[in-house]
Amino acid sequence: MAPLICTCCRHNDAFYFRAYSGECLCKKCFAQSIEAKVRTTITRCHMLQFDDHLAVAVSGGKDSLALLYILAKLHKFRPKTTLTAVTVDEGIKGYRDEALDIAVVNCKKLGIPHHIVSFKELYGFSLDEIIEQANQRGQTKLTACAYCGVLRRRAINAGARAVKADKVATAHTLDDEAQTVLMNILRGDIARLAKEKPVSDKVHPMFVQKIKPFCEILEKESALYAYIKNIAFQDTPCPYASQALRNDVRGMLNRMEEKHTGTKFTVFRAMEKLRPAIEETIHKDAFKVCVECGEPSALNLCKACELLQQLR
Amino acid sequence: MAPLICTCCRHNDAFYFRAYSGECLCKKCFAQSIEAKVRTTITRCHMLQFDDHLAVAVSGGKDSLALLYILAKLHKFRPKTTLTAVTVDEGIKGYRDEALDIAVVNCKKLGIPHHIVSFKELYGFSLDEIIEQANQRGQTKLTACAYCGVLRRRAINAGARAVKADKVATAHTLDDEAQTVLMNILRGDIARLAKEKPVSDKVHPMFVQKIKPFCEILEKESALYAYIKNIAFQDTPCPYASQALRNDVRGMLNRMEEKHTGTKFTVFRAMEKLRPAIEETIHKDAFKVCVECGEPSALNLCKACELLQQLR
Repeated sequence: MAPLICTCCRHNDAFYFRAYSGECLCKKCFAQSIEAKVRTTITRCHMLQFDDHLAVAVSGGKDSLALLYILAKLHKFRPKTTLTAVTVDEGIKGYRDEALDIAVVNCKKLGIPHHIVSFKELYGFSLDEIIEQANQRGQTKLTACAYCGVLRRRAINAGARAVKADKVATAHTLDDEAQTVLMNILRGDIARLAKEKPVSDKVHPMFVQKIKPFCEILEKESALYAYIKNIAFQDTPCPYASQALRNDVRGMLNRMEEKHTGTKFTVFRAMEKLRPAIEETIHKDAFKVCVECGEPSALNLCKACELLQQLR
Repeated sequence: MAPLICTCCRHNDAFYFRAYSGECLCKKCFAQSIEAKVRTTITRCHMLQFDDHLAVAVSGGKDSLALLYILAKLHKFRPKTTLTAVTVDEGIKGYRDEALDIAVVNCKKLGIPHHIVSFKELYGFSLDEIIEQANQRGQTKLTACAYCGVLRRRAINAGARAVKADKVATAHTLDDEAQTVLMNILRGDIARLAKEKPVSDKVHPMFVQKIKPFCEILEKESALYAYIKNIAFQDTPCPYASQALRNDVRGMLNRMEEKHTGTKFTVFRAMEKLRPAIEETIHKDAFKVCVECGEPSALNLCKACELLQQLR
């Protein structure tokens, strides 16, 4: 059989069939389509001002490095935008140290300034130490992901603030967003259903606004982009990874996408349509500052300090 | 090991552990708890007026017969309420005929009048004939469930109207409701997300209002009730059953409920909270009457007539 021709350029051999659109794409057209899509998302969701200083949360995995490459490219179209990569070093031996090296190499290659914030420096404990401490004290109710989720979010914000960024971009993909919608429904967490959106609200001047330029990119297409562009990335999973609920939801969504192509996008769009209605009904907490660390928090003692106090 | 004692009466041996509440229940207390729950749902959701004539959609399966038994019992507390069972005979050889006999026996036993409406009589075709016809014409895009869903809903309404009922009760369980919430999100069908509720809106005088007294009862507890009460029911599945999406969602919800007890209830409650907000944003279609059959419809030609026209 003769190789299929790219339905976009009608010249090169196709190497990827995009089920949801019916396109057969060559490597070049595929990569361009991803870059164009990210630009469209940024414009459609009003993610950036022309002169924003944008921090990019870079873990060293495929999604965050693909995002960094694309944002570096888009820079040409937005020359007044400044980029700085921010990496959180949670302190996970044999995992994060490897990812850190990869992030450093990629930032150097792209000529993008790189700022690293570590759990150890910010909180006095690395994640390894936190888990060891929790186990020793018999505090096994919380998973490593539960600690890391709270402390990482805080660390990304601290890093973005340290480099004086106006916004911080994370590489959450369409898969992440659709999973989060279903997880919040399964947990009945309506407030979070409204909160998790492509551009976060400005709730407090100490919070750097978060944007998700990959929110309309399938995870497998982000991985394919990294592969085509020969981006070196870490592909070993975190040794602590244990998000049972997310894994269940991911599996179901992947099966659904396989059977009914476009399902992830449908879920994302349904939530985009629902969100304004939900936002009107929920009570938004007024933010104060944590009595312990001075960071903005909905409670007197922020969640990060609460977790850390239990360990001390 | 000595047998566990019922945590409710503290007298009989327990035979069922209700994970979401932590109770160990004997058969008698379990059955009473289900009956009490249905009464509470009926009251909380304002499902019935004291003198309503209530049609009960009885298929002959465990859920609808358990519902019929409980409503017959509740009759004691609501003596002015009238009950009539309504069964739809879709015309499925070797399946519905058996279920019909079971429904007839149960109604006779309970002394409840029983009205049967058939597809053949209403539409000129049995479901078997519809599927045969569709296959002969190569119209294989729609599954049997797609035809049956539309025509059955219409038939239940026709049956309830024929007996002059004020409302019609269906035996949708908590499982069905939680599955429907997730399915509508996976399909991005926001209008239906708002529409599917314990008490349907009065959208047209020709539609009999639908109520779901089992919407807070787990399917496995409805089955257990039927078992304890020695209710004879049909337990063979429909030969046409093929709802791929619902099966996927059911499997995931069951796994979730196993791991995080109460998940189905959480999903149901989340939607109860969200619904008012969604209802405000969606455009409600004004109902007119179908040009073909004169039944209320959002379109000029109702869905049932559209399907039937394609077959003629």
